[in-house]
Amino acid sequence: MDKISQSKVFELEPITLGEKQEYVLRGGRELLPKLPEAFDGIKQIGVIGWSAQGPAQAQNLRESLEGTDIKVVVGLREGSQSIPSAEAAGFTRENGTLGEMFDVIRSSDLTLLLIADAAQAALYEDIFNALKPGSTLGLSHGFLIGYLDSLGKKLPDNINVIGVCPKGMGRSVRRLYEQGSGINASVAIEQDIDGKAVDYALGWAVGLGSPAIFETTLTSEYTSDIFGERGILLGAAHGIVETLYRYFIQHGASPEEAFRNSVEAITGPISKTISREGITAVYEKLDDQGKMLFRHAYSATYQPVYTVLTEIYDEVASGTEIRSIIMSSNRLSKHPMGKIEGSPMWQVGEKVRAARSQQGDPPIHPVTAGVYIATMMAQVDVLKEKGHPYSEIANESIIEAVDSLNPYMHAKGVAHMVDNCSTTARLGARKWGPRFDHVLMHEALPDLDQRPITDEEVIENFFNSDMHEALATCAQYRPPIDIAVTD
Amino acid sequence: MDKISQSKVFELEPITLGEKQEYVLRGGRELLPKLPEAFDGIKQIGVIGWSAQGPAQAQNLRESLEGTDIKVVVGLREGSQSIPSAEAAGFTRENGTLGEMFDVIRSSDLTLLLIADAAQAALYEDIFNALKPGSTLGLSHGFLIGYLDSLGKKLPDNINVIGVCPKGMGRSVRRLYEQGSGINASVAIEQDIDGKAVDYALGWAVGLGSPAIFETTLTSEYTSDIFGERGILLGAAHGIVETLYRYFIQHGASPEEAFRNSVEAITGPISKTISREGITAVYEKLDDQGKMLFRHAYSATYQPVYTVLTEIYDEVASGTEIRSIIMSSNRLSKHPMGKIEGSPMWQVGEKVRAARSQQGDPPIHPVTAGVYIATMMAQVDVLKEKGHPYSEIANESIIEAVDSLNPYMHAKGVAHMVDNCSTTARLGARKWGPRFDHVLMHEALPDLDQRPITDEEVIENFFNSDMHEALATCAQYRPPIDIAVTD
Repeated sequence: MDKISQSKVFELEPITLGEKQEYVLRGGRELLPKLPEAFDGIKQIGVIGWSAQGPAQAQNLRESLEGTDIKVVVGLREGSQSIPSAEAAGFTRENGTLGEMFDVIRSSDLTLLLIADAAQAALYEDIFNALKPGSTLGLSHGFLIGYLDSLGKKLPDNINVIGVCPKGMGRSVRRLYEQGSGINASVAIEQDIDGKAVDYALGWAVGLGSPAIFETTLTSEYTSDIFGERGILLGAAHGIVETLYRYFIQHGASPEEAFRNSVEAITGPISKTISREGITAVYEKLDDQGKMLFRHAYSATYQPVYTVLTEIYDEVASGTEIRSIIMSSNRLSKHPMGKIEGSPMWQVGEKVRAARSQQGDPPIHPVTAGVYIATMMAQVDVLKEKGHPYSEIANESIIEAVDSLNPYMHAKGVAHMVDNCSTTARLGARKWGPRFDHVLMHEALPDLDQRPITDEEVIENFFNSDMHEALATCAQYRPPIDIAVTD
Repeated sequence: MDKISQSKVFELEPITLGEKQEYVLRGGRELLPKLPEAFDGIKQIGVIGWSAQGPAQAQNLRESLEGTDIKVVVGLREGSQSIPSAEAAGFTRENGTLGEMFDVIRSSDLTLLLIADAAQAALYEDIFNALKPGSTLGLSHGFLIGYLDSLGKKLPDNINVIGVCPKGMGRSVRRLYEQGSGINASVAIEQDIDGKAVDYALGWAVGLGSPAIFETTLTSEYTSDIFGERGILLGAAHGIVETLYRYFIQHGASPEEAFRNSVEAITGPISKTISREGITAVYEKLDDQGKMLFRHAYSATYQPVYTVLTEIYDEVASGTEIRSIIMSSNRLSKHPMGKIEGSPMWQVGEKVRAARSQQGDPPIHPVTAGVYIATMMAQVDVLKEKGHPYSEIANESIIEAVDSLNPYMHAKGVAHMVDNCSTTARLGARKWGPRFDHVLMHEALPDLDQRPITDEEVIENFFNSDMHEALATCAQYRPPIDIAVTD
C-alpha cells in the first residue's frame, strides 16, 4: 500500500506511524495549478448524486478547476427532488453542467459515484454498463466494493477504479473549503489500467481542498468507515451521552448540569483538547481526584464497549451489516427513519446551548472523559488488531470525531450530527447507539459506582499506546483552521 | 400443513382460527399409555445436550415412559461440565442412561438434538454421519433448518426429521410437568420416510406433558421463535420496562412506584388479565380517563415498534440474524455475555418484590398497558402478514409471554427471565432490547407527552383484530394450572 508514492505529478512525504512507513501528500491551494496535469486526459468529471457528498464535492471541484478546460457536470435521476438544489448551486441544464445521471456517466471521463449506498447496490450493473471503457470510476467510500464482495461479483476490468474518502461529512467538506482549507482524505488505488489512476485520485483529493492526503484500500476504508461511524463517531457518541446524562441526573445533577457534564464536556473541552494536544492531555488537565475518577471510569468502560465494538467489526467485515443496511434501506419508503432526539435531554440541550455565552466552557468531567476516551481507545485497539493503517485509525476514529463531527453536535445536537451523514451512517447510529447506551448503563456505570477500581493493565495500555505518537504525527496534518458550523 | 391429522394413534380435533382450519391434539397424562404404540420401533431415545431444554425433556420423557421398554439416554460431550447435573438427575453411566454424545446418537432410534444453536451449527455434519439410517432426528426448534438453508445445504434423506417445540423455556417445561401438567407445544413433520414421523412427533410432545399440541413447520417455527424472543417475549419486554421505569421517574414517581407501574404492572395484572380474559379485557378494566390514556399510549407506540419488529423479521427470515448469532457465539469464549440487570431499577425491583405481600397487586397503569399491548399487537400483525398459523402466533407471541416468561420476570427480574433461555435468545434480547428502549424513549413517549392523540385507525385495528377470537380459542388449550416459580 504505497502506490501513491509513484505519483508523476505530486511530491509525497514519507511518515512513520506505529513503526510503519506510510506516505502523505500535503494538499493546499498552491497545488491547484497542477490539476490539469494530474487530470491528464480528463475533459469531464461527472458528479453523480446530490445528497451527502455530492453538493460539496461538485462545488469544491468546480471552484478548484476554474479557468481550466475541465468541466464538472452533475448527474441526477430524471425528476430527482435534488434538481432545484443543484440548480441553486449553479449546476443547470442551460449551462451544460446538469444532466440525467446515465447520460452524465456515459459522457464523463471521471465519474464520481456519490449516490446512496442502497442506490449503488440497486443500480451498479446499469452504472458499470454506462461507464466509458478506459474511463475512471471514483468512489468516496468502499461500500460498493464490500457489496460486490458479498455477492461474489467483480468490478469491470476495463476502467480505473479509485477512491477519495474525505474524513468527514459532506457539509464539512464544503464548509472548510469555503473557509479556505478543506478536510483530510484518504485515497485508494483499486484498479489502475493506464498508469494514471494515482494522479487522478490525488488530483481529485487536492481539488476537494484536502490539506493532507493519506493512502488506504477501499476494503480497509469501508470496513473502518462503516465500523467507525457505528462506533465513536456517531453511534457510540450518541449512546455515551444518553447514558451519561441520565447517570448525572441520577447522582443529583440538575438537567442543565447533567447536559453540561455529558454532551457539552465531550463536544467542547474534551474534543478541543484531543484535537490540539492529544488524548492523554485530557487526563493531564484533571486534578488528582479527577485523575483517579478518570482511571476508574476508563477501567469500567473499556471491556464492555470493546465487546460491542468487536461485534460491530465482525458484522461489518463479514458483510452481514451491509446486507442489513440494504434491507433497512428498502424499508425506508414504508417506514421512514425514526427520530433520535426525542428524549427530554435534548430539550434541555437547546436551553444549555442558548445560555452558553454566559457560562463559558464546561469543565472536563472525569467520568465523561474516562468513558468517552475508553471507547475511543477500544475502537483504536480493535482497528489496530485488524491491521488497519495507523493514518486511517487516527484520521477516522479520532480526528474525524473531534475536528469534524463533534463540532456539529456542539452546535445543534446529536440529530444534527448524525442526520447530516449518509443513510448508511444514520441507520448504523440508530442501530448501535442503543447498544452502547445499554452496556454502559448495565455494566460500566454500575461497576464504576459499586466497585470502582483502576485496572492497571488497561490503564497502562492506554498510556503506552503507540497511537498517541501516531496521532501527534497525523495531527500535524490537520486542517489549519477550526470548522465553523453556522447553519 | 395438516399432516398431524393423519395420526394412526391419536385423535386430533379440528379448530378454526382466523378463518383457517388447524388441528390440535389435547395431551394429558391419560394419553401416556399410548406412547409405546406411538413410538413403535423405538427402543432408545437419545437426549443430546443438557442446557436449556435437555434436563426438562430428558426427565419428563423418562417419567412418562416409566414401565415401558423404551429407554431415555442422555448424551454429552466427553468431559462436559453438565455431567454432574445429569447424574444428580439420575442419568448415569452406571445405569446405562448417560453416554458420550456421538455414541448415544449412534445407538438411538430417536435422537433429540438439544445442544446450543452454535454447537448445532458447528457439529451438524458429524451428527448427520452418526445418525442410524432409518432413525429419527428430533429438533426442539428450527434453528438448524434455517442454518442449513443459509448455507444451501440439505438434511440427510435417509432419516425422519421431526420437531417438537415447547412454547416456553426448559425450566417451565419441567416445572409444569412436576405440577402435573405441561407446556403447550407445536410439532412439525419435516421429513417422513416411513410413515411413522407423525406419531413419533405427537408421542414426544405427549411425553413432555404438553396439554395441547399444534402443528407448524420448522421454518415457520424458527422464524417466529427467533423473531418472537427478540420481540415481546424477551427483547421488547426488557426494553419496554427499562423505558417506562425512567418515564415514570421523570414524571415524578418514586423509584418504587415507577417499578410497580412498569415491571409489576406487566408481570402481574396485565399478564394475568391477558392470560385469563384476553387482551381487550385489560382495556376494559380501566376507567374512562385510563381508557383514553391507553388509546393515546397505544397510538404513540404502535408504529415505532412495528418498524423495529419488521426489521427483526427481515433479519431473521433472511438468515442475517443467524449468521450474527454464530459470530456472537464464537466470541463468547473471549467476551462472556454482559449483564442486563445492572441499572439501578433492578435494585429497586428487589425491594419492591420483597415488599409485595404487604402491597398487593399494583394497578394496571394505562400507559404501561398501552405500550405493552401495542407492542404485542404489532408483533401479532407482523406475523399475520408473513402468513404464520394463528395457533403459532397466539401461542408464541401471547400465551408464551403471559403464561411462561413473564411469571419468571415477576419472580426474579428480567435477567432471570432472559438468562434462563437459550444462548440465541439471550444474545437476541441483548441485541434488540436496547432498540425498543430507544424508539420508545425517542419517539413513542415524547409523542404521548407532547401530542397525545388517538389514532382511530390503529385503535380500530386493535379492537377488530381477529386474533382476539383466535386467542380465546387457543386459550381453551392453555395448561390447566399456573406456573409456580420457586427457585
